[in-house]
Amino acid sequence: MANEWATFGADLHLELRGPRLRAGLMDALREAVRSGRLTAGTRLPSSRSLAADLGIARNTVADAYAELVAEGWLTARQGSGTRVARRTDPHRTETGRTRAGRTASGQAASARTAGGGRVAGSRFGGGGAAGGRVGGGGAAGVPGSAPPALPVLPRTPTPSYDLKAGTPDLASFPRAEWLKAYRRALADAPNEALGYGDTRGRAELRTVLAEYLARARGVHARPGRIVVCAGFVQGLALLGQVLRSRGVRDVAVESYGLGLHTGLLTGAGLGTPVLPFDERGTRVEELAGGEPGAVGAVLMTAAHQFPLGGALPPDRRTALVGWARSSGAFVLEDDYDGEFRFDRQPVGALQGLDPERVVYLGTASKSLAPGLRLAWMVLPEELVGEVVAAKGTDGGNALEQLALAEFIRSGAYDRHVRRVRLNYRRRRDQLVAAVAAHSPETRVSGIAAGLHAVLALPPGTEQATLRAAAWHGLAVQGVDQFRRPTVPPTLDGLVVGYATPPDSAWQGALEALMRVLP
Amino acid sequence: MANEWATFGADLHLELRGPRLRAGLMDALREAVRSGRLTAGTRLPSSRSLAADLGIARNTVADAYAELVAEGWLTARQGSGTRVARRTDPHRTETGRTRAGRTASGQAASARTAGGGRVAGSRFGGGGAAGGRVGGGGAAGVPGSAPPALPVLPRTPTPSYDLKAGTPDLASFPRAEWLKAYRRALADAPNEALGYGDTRGRAELRTVLAEYLARARGVHARPGRIVVCAGFVQGLALLGQVLRSRGVRDVAVESYGLGLHTGLLTGAGLGTPVLPFDERGTRVEELAGGEPGAVGAVLMTAAHQFPLGGALPPDRRTALVGWARSSGAFVLEDDYDGEFRFDRQPVGALQGLDPERVVYLGTASKSLAPGLRLAWMVLPEELVGEVVAAKGTDGGNALEQLALAEFIRSGAYDRHVRRVRLNYRRRRDQLVAAVAAHSPETRVSGIAAGLHAVLALPPGTEQATLRAAAWHGLAVQGVDQFRRPTVPPTLDGLVVGYATPPDSAWQGALEALMRVLP
Repeated sequence: MANEWATFGADLHLELRGPRLRAGLMDALREAVRSGRLTAGTRLPSSRSLAADLGIARNTVADAYAELVAEGWLTARQGSGTRVARRTDPHRTETGRTRAGRTASGQAASARTAGGGRVAGSRFGGGGAAGGRVGGGGAAGVPGSAPPALPVLPRTPTPSYDLKAGTPDLASFPRAEWLKAYRRALADAPNEALGYGDTRGRAELRTVLAEYLARARGVHARPGRIVVCAGFVQGLALLGQVLRSRGVRDVAVESYGLGLHTGLLTGAGLGTPVLPFDERGTRVEELAGGEPGAVGAVLMTAAHQFPLGGALPPDRRTALVGWARSSGAFVLEDDYDGEFRFDRQPVGALQGLDPERVVYLGTASKSLAPGLRLAWMVLPEELVGEVVAAKGTDGGNALEQLALAEFIRSGAYDRHVRRVRLNYRRRRDQLVAAVAAHSPETRVSGIAAGLHAVLALPPGTEQATLRAAAWHGLAVQGVDQFRRPTVPPTLDGLVVGYATPPDSAWQGALEALMRVLP
Repeated sequence: MANEWATFGADLHLELRGPRLRAGLMDALREAVRSGRLTAGTRLPSSRSLAADLGIARNTVADAYAELVAEGWLTARQGSGTRVARRTDPHRTETGRTRAGRTASGQAASARTAGGGRVAGSRFGGGGAAGGRVGGGGAAGVPGSAPPALPVLPRTPTPSYDLKAGTPDLASFPRAEWLKAYRRALADAPNEALGYGDTRGRAELRTVLAEYLARARGVHARPGRIVVCAGFVQGLALLGQVLRSRGVRDVAVESYGLGLHTGLLTGAGLGTPVLPFDERGTRVEELAGGEPGAVGAVLMTAAHQFPLGGALPPDRRTALVGWARSSGAFVLEDDYDGEFRFDRQPVGALQGLDPERVVYLGTASKSLAPGLRLAWMVLPEELVGEVVAAKGTDGGNALEQLALAEFIRSGAYDRHVRRVRLNYRRRRDQLVAAVAAHSPETRVSGIAAGLHAVLALPPGTEQATLRAAAWHGLAVQGVDQFRRPTVPPTLDGLVVGYATPPDSAWQGALEALMRVLP
């Protein structure tokens, strides 16, 4: 009877208050699928009967079903009704992302699971091992957790706190200041700004960015070498395409990183050999020993390794750029959170060491909000033409670009970064203190920077900790999800995105995290 | 002495009145480069001395130089000053687009060139023959005109009017109403809207679009089947990719159209066989006679053929959809200006005939502004998953999408479309009347709709007319630029984008056009 709807329907009913019925119903259904309470193939009741059960309009249910079919959670076939889909979809949607702070704080605190070994077969098998996605898909909820067909327990739905890395505190987005910048940008924009734009993006934004990046990150930028992109992923996809058509065979990547990024490179036809790492970070020295010319570029998070959290030491920075220079290769510098260093002034971007060999990639996704879809590349002279040609005629949204230009120009960007940096720093300090108090076996590793920290766990405890987190409704990822498949598993840890929750949910999230640490 | 600045500076001075000095200076400099009056390598005076010459602030000059460097018109190197760049850039900027109506009306009216045959070699050779781009590059000014290094004549700079098709009147963009919608959208947006979004775009926009498209264009749309894109080109590129990976070999295209679009399809590895046309439009009947299964889709501008201007007659609409249904193929319906029918209610979209075989593609680029980079596809159920997977994690800019949703929801979109439709209709009527009065040999062809009309010219006069237009500083394109390379040249005509100029320049543009007609 685990698939029996009636029980679940009654359970759901508790959640369906407030005006946003359809969205609430969809969230409840997603959560039920994610948690395993509704398993693949389960037939849902007709929209008519569920609507009657829940006391809501039939259309509300029908629309929710249709949306969830479109999102891949459900399937609908004539004659066989609406069923829970098998989760083999190649596309995952973001709408499944849990919203931190929506429900009450955790009530199932007593259910902590004990330690426990790794599941031996889980590393290389199936679909989950080839690098997790942060800020990419989200529908799968807490990866690696989904308990198969949990019995339907008479408890309130799982509270959810989101400590997945990759997203800033969206509640801190400076709406009033942004609107002010947008209003001024719209008022000042020449008519031609509303036309088909420069493929590189608005000159106003590129001009302001050139100045800002020089000042904040030591980047040598001229407006003509900047290309504005719809997020880092568009930039990386374009670079992959350009490098491939230049005859580059391989782009080396770090031992840990986002599978989404290597996927973009392999999608462009490139190999992605993995650089080893040691306690000082990525061993860029290995590049010199490779087959000459084979590796045409390296994708690096030099200022703050993602996710492990180290900064590439000075001698390796020098060696990396030296290798690029002597071999004619490029460094693709993913400077995703370069503005957020808490302990001291951030080290300048690698790009400053050699603007002709380093492609600098920055983004507003961490400093402001991913929903703006605004990122930028500063390109070596020799790549500008090819990247622009690959980008085609898409100059991006002109008004948002002009708004960002005005936002930076007016000083609002600096003020915002300072404000959220203080807040993230405070959260990180609280995390460090809480870990020291609650889990002496756990160590916060990496530099004091960015929007996330790695909690190094006692060997062999990562999977059990993740299971405990899932049980407590805490969305958090393990370092193993970011390990490239060929890298031997040697670390146990949690990647804690302390920036992710809104202020109102931060304490609850931190408490939930403490409950699940070994 | 053709490179001597002083002469040019004095000449410029005539143009530099009014408050928008920097923009005016930039236009003047671009025009001087474009026309050949300033040749590659010419060193410009220092910003200080030019500012003194012109009696304007030094910063104004310095800013204009910096912008033009960013745009690729000039180069600046330490020690060698600011020089005119070599125009070998593979990327062209849009900012070089001539701004219609900025200068006084044409004075060189007496210089009309007589008729004259086509340049025989110009059809298939070089880069220009494979279909022109509208709204793509623009920096080259009037195509085919640029006279090499004109002597510096003691006349005012060439006036420029822009009647190239593809852009609405950007001065009519409803800035106040748009800001209102944006403000409300930003105030109402949930925090999660600022995160990584649904790949299909915001649900709010898709919901509003589903209702609007059903009402305005007879499209059968459900929000789950709509995918919001950064312009039509992103949509078409995605469809090309998906069709190719489904094993489709060819996507048929019309005899006349945008080379940019066929380029996107061939870039995805697809063949683009050309459908013949006759006086009733594209001969879709030919599809039935082809090799079965070879053509997997057809790209069609059914409501208003671009650029020729006809509407696909009812029997051919039926035949086209019938062919798609019986062969399992798709029709890609490019409904770029479907809201602009002047003579009667527009015929509904083809998609209404069979939503499972027709992909509907609409855009805000003609109804509002291309700079918004907002377009949408309504997909057959079977394509949704693949298109979403191909689109990856890019959900587009959330705030602009929410603003458009609010703009439509509030009725502002309908009001705007009605307003500009009346204006374009009036302009088209004036064009028809002027042609009848001034050029009895010329005929306005196509239906009364859209943002452009085709003026059918006497046989053999197109190239000479284009040369005359260039001489008069009138940017306009011939139908030959839109002819697929394999289609025999049988039409002579001008594609007149009467929507392009602002109101203030429309009369001048129309007069200039009349002067160049045979």
